[in-house]
Amino acid sequence: MDTKSATGPFANLPPVLQLLHEAKAAQRKTFAELAEALGKAEIWVAALFYGQAKPSPQDLQTLSSVLQVPLIKLRGIGGLGKEWWPYRGLGGGIPTDPLIYRLYEGVLVYGHPIKAVIHEKFNGDGIMSMIDCRVSVEKKEDPKGDRVVLTFDGKFLPYAVW
Amino acid sequence: MDTKSATGPFANLPPVLQLLHEAKAAQRKTFAELAEALGKAEIWVAALFYGQAKPSPQDLQTLSSVLQVPLIKLRGIGGLGKEWWPYRGLGGGIPTDPLIYRLYEGVLVYGHPIKAVIHEKFNGDGIMSMIDCRVSVEKKEDPKGDRVVLTFDGKFLPYAVW
Amino acid sequence: MDTKSATGPFANLPPVLQLLHEAKAAQRKTFAELAEALGKAEIWVAALFYGQAKPSPQDLQTLSSVLQVPLIKLRGIGGLGKEWWPYRGLGGGIPTDPLIYRLYEGVLVYGHPIKAVIHEKFNGDGIMSMIDCRVSVEKKEDPKGDRVVLTFDGKFLPYAVW
Amino acid sequence: MDTKSATGPFANLPPVLQLLHEAKAAQRKTFAELAEALGKAEIWVAALFYGQAKPSPQDLQTLSSVLQVPLIKLRGIGGLGKEWWPYRGLGGGIPTDPLIYRLYEGVLVYGHPIKAVIHEKFNGDGIMSMIDCRVSVEKKEDPKGDRVVLTFDGKFLPYAVW
Amino acid sequence: MDTKSATGPFANLPPVLQLLHEAKAAQRKTFAELAEALGKAEIWVAALFYGQAKPSPQDLQTLSSVLQVPLIKLRGIGGLGKEWWPYRGLGGGIPTDPLIYRLYEGVLVYGHPIKAVIHEKFNGDGIMSMIDCRVSVEKKEDPKGDRVVLTFDGKFLPYAVW
Amino acid sequence: MDTKSATGPFANLPPVLQLLHEAKAAQRKTFAELAEALGKAEIWVAALFYGQAKPSPQDLQTLSSVLQVPLIKLRGIGGLGKEWWPYRGLGGGIPTDPLIYRLYEGVLVYGHPIKAVIHEKFNGDGIMSMIDCRVSVEKKEDPKGDRVVLTFDGKFLPYAVW
Amino acid sequence: MDTKSATGPFANLPPVLQLLHEAKAAQRKTFAELAEALGKAEIWVAALFYGQAKPSPQDLQTLSSVLQVPLIKLRGIGGLGKEWWPYRGLGGGIPTDPLIYRLYEGVLVYGHPIKAVIHEKFNGDGIMSMIDCRVSVEKKEDPKGDRVVLTFDGKFLPYAVW
Amino acid sequence: MDTKSATGPFANLPPVLQLLHEAKAAQRKTFAELAEALGKAEIWVAALFYGQAKPSPQDLQTLSSVLQVPLIKLRGIGGLGKEWWPYRGLGGGIPTDPLIYRLYEGVLVYGHPIKAVIHEKFNGDGIMSMIDCRVSVEKKEDPKGDRVVLTFDGKFLPYAVW
Amino acid sequence: MDTKSATGPFANLPPVLQLLHEAKAAQRKTFAELAEALGKAEIWVAALFYGQAKPSPQDLQTLSSVLQVPLIKLRGIGGLGKEWWPYRGLGGGIPTDPLIYRLYEGVLVYGHPIKAVIHEKFNGDGIMSMIDCRVSVEKKEDPKGDRVVLTFDGKFLPYAVW
Amino acid sequence: MDTKSATGPFANLPPVLQLLHEAKAAQRKTFAELAEALGKAEIWVAALFYGQAKPSPQDLQTLSSVLQVPLIKLRGIGGLGKEWWPYRGLGGGIPTDPLIYRLYEGVLVYGHPIKAVIHEKFNGDGIMSMIDCRVSVEKKEDPKGDRVVLTFDGKFLPYAVW
Repeated sequence: MDTKSATGPFANLPPVLQLLHEAKAAQRKTFAELAEALGKAEIWVAALFYGQAKPSPQDLQTLSSVLQVPLIKLRGIGGLGKEWWPYRGLGGGIPTDPLIYRLYEGVLVYGHPIKAVIHEKFNGDGIMSMIDCRVSVEKKEDPKGDRVVLTFDGKFLPYAVW
Repeated sequence: MDTKSATGPFANLPPVLQLLHEAKAAQRKTFAELAEALGKAEIWVAALFYGQAKPSPQDLQTLSSVLQVPLIKLRGIGGLGKEWWPYRGLGGGIPTDPLIYRLYEGVLVYGHPIKAVIHEKFNGDGIMSMIDCRVSVEKKEDPKGDRVVLTFDGKFLPYAVW
Repeated sequence: MDTKSATGPFANLPPVLQLLHEAKAAQRKTFAELAEALGKAEIWVAALFYGQAKPSPQDLQTLSSVLQVPLIKLRGIGGLGKEWWPYRGLGGGIPTDPLIYRLYEGVLVYGHPIKAVIHEKFNGDGIMSMIDCRVSVEKKEDPKGDRVVLTFDGKFLPYAVW
Repeated sequence: MDTKSATGPFANLPPVLQLLHEAKAAQRKTFAELAEALGKAEIWVAALFYGQAKPSPQDLQTLSSVLQVPLIKLRGIGGLGKEWWPYRGLGGGIPTDPLIYRLYEGVLVYGHPIKAVIHEKFNGDGIMSMIDCRVSVEKKEDPKGDRVVLTFDGKFLPYAVW
Repeated sequence: MDTKSATGPFANLPPVLQLLHEAKAAQRKTFAELAEALGKAEIWVAALFYGQAKPSPQDLQTLSSVLQVPLIKLRGIGGLGKEWWPYRGLGGGIPTDPLIYRLYEGVLVYGHPIKAVIHEKFNGDGIMSMIDCRVSVEKKEDPKGDRVVLTFDGKFLPYAVW
Repeated sequence: MDTKSATGPFANLPPVLQLLHEAKAAQRKTFAELAEALGKAEIWVAALFYGQAKPSPQDLQTLSSVLQVPLIKLRGIGGLGKEWWPYRGLGGGIPTDPLIYRLYEGVLVYGHPIKAVIHEKFNGDGIMSMIDCRVSVEKKEDPKGDRVVLTFDGKFLPYAVW
Repeated sequence: MDTKSATGPFANLPPVLQLLHEAKAAQRKTFAELAEALGKAEIWVAALFYGQAKPSPQDLQTLSSVLQVPLIKLRGIGGLGKEWWPYRGLGGGIPTDPLIYRLYEGVLVYGHPIKAVIHEKFNGDGIMSMIDCRVSVEKKEDPKGDRVVLTFDGKFLPYAVW
Repeated sequence: MDTKSATGPFANLPPVLQLLHEAKAAQRKTFAELAEALGKAEIWVAALFYGQAKPSPQDLQTLSSVLQVPLIKLRGIGGLGKEWWPYRGLGGGIPTDPLIYRLYEGVLVYGHPIKAVIHEKFNGDGIMSMIDCRVSVEKKEDPKGDRVVLTFDGKFLPYAVW
Repeated sequence: MDTKSATGPFANLPPVLQLLHEAKAAQRKTFAELAEALGKAEIWVAALFYGQAKPSPQDLQTLSSVLQVPLIKLRGIGGLGKEWWPYRGLGGGIPTDPLIYRLYEGVLVYGHPIKAVIHEKFNGDGIMSMIDCRVSVEKKEDPKGDRVVLTFDGKFLPYAVW
Repeated sequence: MDTKSATGPFANLPPVLQLLHEAKAAQRKTFAELAEALGKAEIWVAALFYGQAKPSPQDLQTLSSVLQVPLIKLRGIGGLGKEWWPYRGLGGGIPTDPLIYRLYEGVLVYGHPIKAVIHEKFNGDGIMSMIDCRVSVEKKEDPKGDRVVLTFDGKFLPYAVW
C-alpha cells in the first residue's frame, strides 16, 4: 500500500494532458462549456482530457483557441496530433478511488443480471459495444437527495456465426 | 487458464437459485414477465436470481406461485428467507466473459472522465451510490443496429466533513 | 469472475458451523440473545459462528442447550472442542461484498491518517492490537437515517527496542 | 520485495502535501491542534494531509495562516483549490505496515461477523456508509496498558428495491 | 503450482460438453467433419464444444443425429438450448499450456505493433472486433516443416465520437 | 488504477525508440513505406519500433537514411546495434487498451478450440511457433464495414519424444 | 473473500493426515509426547502431521503403535510410505491466519536486516539453508507475559563461484 | 495459505494418471525401469505420468503389460488414447515446493545471464526451444556430497525476419 | 520480470538511510560495532538502517558522532527525527532474493506446524507478537559447516474474549 | 500492459552495472573472453554483470584493467566492493521475454517429473541446491539446427531430520 497515487486528478498524465487540465483551470472552463465549444458531449471531452479519446485537428484548434494554449503544443511532438492514438484503459486491476470503485462494484453486483437481461431482451447472443457507445452523466434533482444518472448507450453486436 | 467456468449461466449458483433458474426456464417466463408479477424492475429480478438482491416474504410467495416451486424450498433452510442475506459481488477480479468485460472496460476507459464530470456537475465532493441505485437495460431500435441503453440512477452522496 | 461465492452467509463453512447457523435460525435466536446466554459480546459470538473465535467447554454446553444441538456434535471429531483452534482470516485479498468492502475502503482511505494520529496521540512507536481487541456494532437512531457505530477497542502495543 | 516504500510517512505524496507535512513539523503542530484551528475532527485533518479529504477555501486560508505557508501554494496550480478533487485510496492491495495491516486483519477476522450483526441489528439489507462516515481515534488510559478506541460512525444505507 | 489442471482436454467442462466430446471420440468424427455436417466452420464448431458459441436448435438436432446423442440431453435442463447462453472466456489470467501460451505471447510481442499498423492502415481510431470475427486454422505444407496459418478476420469498429 | 499509462503510443519506450517514432512522424512515413524501404514486412517494422525485433546493421543504415537520424544514435551506446538484443514482451499481465485486449480475448475465447483443431489437423502433439512466425495485418474492404485480417503464419513444432 | 478456509486445523489435509490428527486427538497425545516416542523434535513431528516431512518406515510403525492406527493405512496406497514424498509449502501467497501472518510480517520487517547481518557476520556471500535447518518453539515464562522463542538453526551455505 | 496442496505426489491428477502412479508403486518399478521398457528417457516417462507428454499406442500397450493395468483403462474414455492431448503446465504462478521452487529461482537468478550468453554464443536473435528439448537428470557422485546434473538440450530457434 | 530491483542493498532507500549506509561503509563499521555504541542489538540497528525501527534522539546523536554525519541531516526535514515514524514492511508479496526467500519458505513449510505447537504448548488461543519481539542472528561454528541461528523471541498474546 | 520494460538488456540496472555493460561493448569483449581473463565460468561472469554474483577484490581489479574502467568506480560508493552484496532475483513473477519464459515453461512442464526422478534417483528426501550450483550454456552443432545445452549442476541437499 504505497502512497504514490495520493495525487490530484491529473498528476500522472503526460505533459500535454496536464497542460490541458491546467489551462482549463486557469480559464475556469467546465467540461460542459468546452463540450459546447467543441460540439461534443461532456463525457467525451473529459475522456479526451484523460487521453481516452482522439481529437480531430479541428478539435485541437478549438481547444487551442478557447483555452489559450499554443496550437503547436497540442499537435506537435509529444502532442495529440495525427500521429497520436489513445492508449486507453487507465491502469487496470481494481480501482481504489471510492467513486470509481462504485462503478466497478456495479459490474460485480449487476454484471450477470445485465448479461441475462440483454440476452433475453435482444433475443440473441451478443454484447453491448463499448466502442460504438455514448456515455453521459446527468444530474436529476430530487428532494431526497439529487441523483446521478449515468447512461451507456451502446450498439448491440451479435456474435458472428460462420 | 482452466476450464472450470466453461459453464452455462447458473451452474455455480447455490441449489435454491438453480431451482429458480430452472423453474423460470420450465415455465418459459422472461425476467420482464416476472418483474411484472412481482411489481419490481427487470434487472432487480435478475439480480435476485443471481443472489444479488434480497426478496421480501411476499416476493417469495409470488415466485412460488408463478414458477410453481414449493414455498418451503424458497424460504426454508438453504433458501432465501428471513435468515438469508445476499453475499454480493460475483467473483471479483477482472471478468472474462466479453459482455461483462465490456462493462469493466467502461470503468477503465470512462471512469476518470465520469468522476471528473460528477465532481463538476454536482459542484461537490462525493460519489454516486451503488446501494441506492436503480439499474435498467432498455432496447432502443435503430436501423443501423439496435442499441442497448444501460442506465445507473444512483443517489449522489456528499462526503462527510466532520 | 466466477459465481461460486454467490451463496448465502454460511454455505462454505465447515459442517459444525453450518449446523450452528441452522440451529440459530431454527430457534429464531439473534446473536444478541446468544451473547446474553453466553455472557459474551454480540460480535464475539458472531465471530464464533464464523470460526473466528475459540469457545470454552462451557460455551459449547450453553450453545448445545440453547440451540438444542447435541453436545457431541459440537465438541467431537470435526467439532470445536479442545483440539480445535481457529484458523482465522476469511479468505484474504480484496472483499467483494459491498458491506465488507466498505470496511476495507475504510483502511484504504483512513489507514494512513489513523496511523499518523495514533503515533501522535500515544506519542510513541507502536500499533493497535487486533488480538487484545474488542469489537462492537451499535445502532444509533438518527432522524436523518440511523447510523452504525463500529468500534475497535484495542490495546496499544509499543514496538520493542532491544 | 523491493525497498521503494521504505520511506517516511510523506515521501511519496505530491509536493503540496509534503509541504503541509513539513510545515506542520516545522511549526510543531499536532493534528489535534490543527483540528481545533479548523473546527474539524483530528482524523479528518490527517486525512486532508494524505490527500483523502477536500478542504474548503476557508480551510486553506486557515492552514496558510496557522502553518505559515503562502496561500498561493495551497490553492494554485498543483494545489488543493477549487479544481482539485481527492483521488482516494492509498495504494490498494494488502497493506504491509503492521499498524495498517492490523486494520486490514480486522476486516479479515471480523468482517463476516460485523456483516451478520449489522443485518440483524438493523433488521434489513444494507451497508454502513464509508462516505457519510466519521472516524475517530481516542486514547483510553488503562493500567494494564493504554488502549486505542477507533470508531467508525457511518450512516446505514438500505439497498434500493425498485 | 497445483496439479489440478493436469487433465485431459475436457475434464473440467460441464457434463453436456463432456458428453459431446465423448460422443465425438466414440464416433471418430473430426471437427472438420462436424463442421461440414453443420454447415459451419471448423473453429466455430470447436468453440461450441468448449462452450464458447451458441448453437441453434437446428445445430443441436444435427449434432444429436450425427453423434447419436439423445436430443433431450442437448437441449433439456443443463443443456445448450434456448435458455443457455455461453459464458465465454476459459479461465483468464496467463495460460500455462504451451500451445495456448504462444498465442498469448503473440499478444505480448506483437500487440503494440498490430495496434500501430491497424491505426495507420485504417487511418482511424478503432479496434478489430472479436465479436464479429471469424477465426480459422489452416495447414500449409512446407518442406522445411508444415505451418499453421491462424487467421482472425474481424470487423473494424471505429470509436464513437459524440 | 493509476494513470501512469495514460500516454501516447511511445512515451515509455527507451530514447532510441522514441527517436525513431518521432523521426517517422516528422518524415510523415508510414510503416508500409518503411517496410518497402527495408524490404521487410509492415508488422515486423512496427515490431522493431517497439523494441520487439532486432535490426541488421543494414536496416539501421536504411533507417538512418530514410528517417534522417544520425547513424551513431541508432547503433551507438543506448542504441540498437550489435550489442543490443530485444527484451521482448511489452508488460505482461492483462492488457487494458481495448484494441490489444481484443487480441487477448481471442486467446480466452478461441484458445482451446484452436488447440483442439491444431492437434486434430496436424494429427500430432505440438505447437505453433511464435518464433518462426510471420504476422500480418490486412485491410479487407467490405460494404458492411471494412475488416481487419490478422494472420499468424507459424511453423508447426512437434514435441520431442526422447 | 470466500469462506472456504474457515475450517479447523486439518480439514483440507489428505485423508491419511486427517487420520493422524484425529488419532492424536483421540489418544490425547501432544506433539511433545509423540516427539519423545519417535525420538524426533516437536516441530518436526508437527511438520509430519501437515505433510511437510517424510517419515521413515520405523516412524510409521511407532506412530501406528502409539496412535493405534493400522500400519497399512499409514504406508499403503494413499499413505506416507516409500512412494510418498512431501509436496511442501502450504498454499503460498500471503497468509491470513494472524499467527502465521506474524511470521510473514517478520520477513517483511526484518528480512533485509537479517540478510545484512548474515552477510556481515559470516563475512561472505551465501544464505541460511531452510533444508538443513532445525526449527524449535520454546516457552519462556515471564512475569510480564510468557514468551515464545522460535529458533531456526540452519547451515550457512556459501554461493558457488565457478 | 490453504492446505489443499498438502498432498502426496499424485493426489490431484486425473484418475488414469493416479492409476498409473499406483500401479508403478504396486509393481515397485522405477521410472528408470519403465524408461528402459518403453525405450524412452526417464524424465520423459515421468512427464507422461504427470500428463505432460503424449504416449503412442505402443507406449500404452507396454505400460499395460509392464504395470499390469488393463489396456482399456489406458486408452478408453478418460484415458490417454488417440483423442487425448496433454494440457501442459502444472498450475502456473510461483511454485511452493522447495525442490521445484529452486528451479524457478534458477530462472530468477540466472535467466538474464543465460539469455545474454545464448545471444552471444549463437551470435543471433533467438531462443532455446522447450518443445524440441530433451531433459535429463543425472546423479554425479561426489565425496563432498552427491550432485544433481540437470540438463536441458533444446534446439536453437532463430527469430523469423520477414 | 523487470530488472529494476537488480541493485545493491540500499539503492531504493530514502536519502537519509542511504547516507547512513554510506557513512557506515566509509567508517568501516559493522552493525555489531554500531550496536555496541548505541547499546542496542545488532538486528535492531540493521532494522533502523532499513527504516524499520525508530531511533531515539540519543540514538541519532550517537550515530551522528560515530559515523561522522551532521546531526541536522539525521533529524531535520527528510530525516529520522521526532516527526518521523517507520513505515514498516519492505515491499510485500513474495521475496525474490534467495536469502530472504528462505525465510519466507520457512513460513510456507513450518508455519502450520509452528501454529499447532504454540497452541499446544501455551495451552491457549493466541499468537506470538511480532511487535514485542526481539530478533537475533548468531553464528554457530560447526566443523560440518557453520550455522546461522536465527531467533524470534516474542511475547505470547492471548486472544481477547469479551 | 505498459511499455516500460521495452528496453535493451541493461537499461534498468544500477549505474555501475550499466557501466560494465557499456565498457564490455566498447571493448568488444565477449563473456567468454572475460571469463577467461577472470578464471571464472561464462555464466558466472554474465551473472555478475546482472548483479547476481559477488566479485572478489581481485575480480574487480581484473575487470578494471580488461575493460579499462577506473577501479574506484567499481569498488567505491555505489560500486561492487566489500560492502556490496547481491540482491538476487531479477523481478519475480512470470517472465515475458520469450527466451526467459521458455526456462520458466520448463519448470511448469518438467518440474514435477524432475522432482519425482530426483527423489527416486537419490533415494531420498531433498532438493537440488541452487546456491552450490554451477550453470553452463554450451552450443552443440547439429545439421538439423544447432542446439543449446543448458546444465545446472547442483549439490543434492538432504532434508534435515531432527
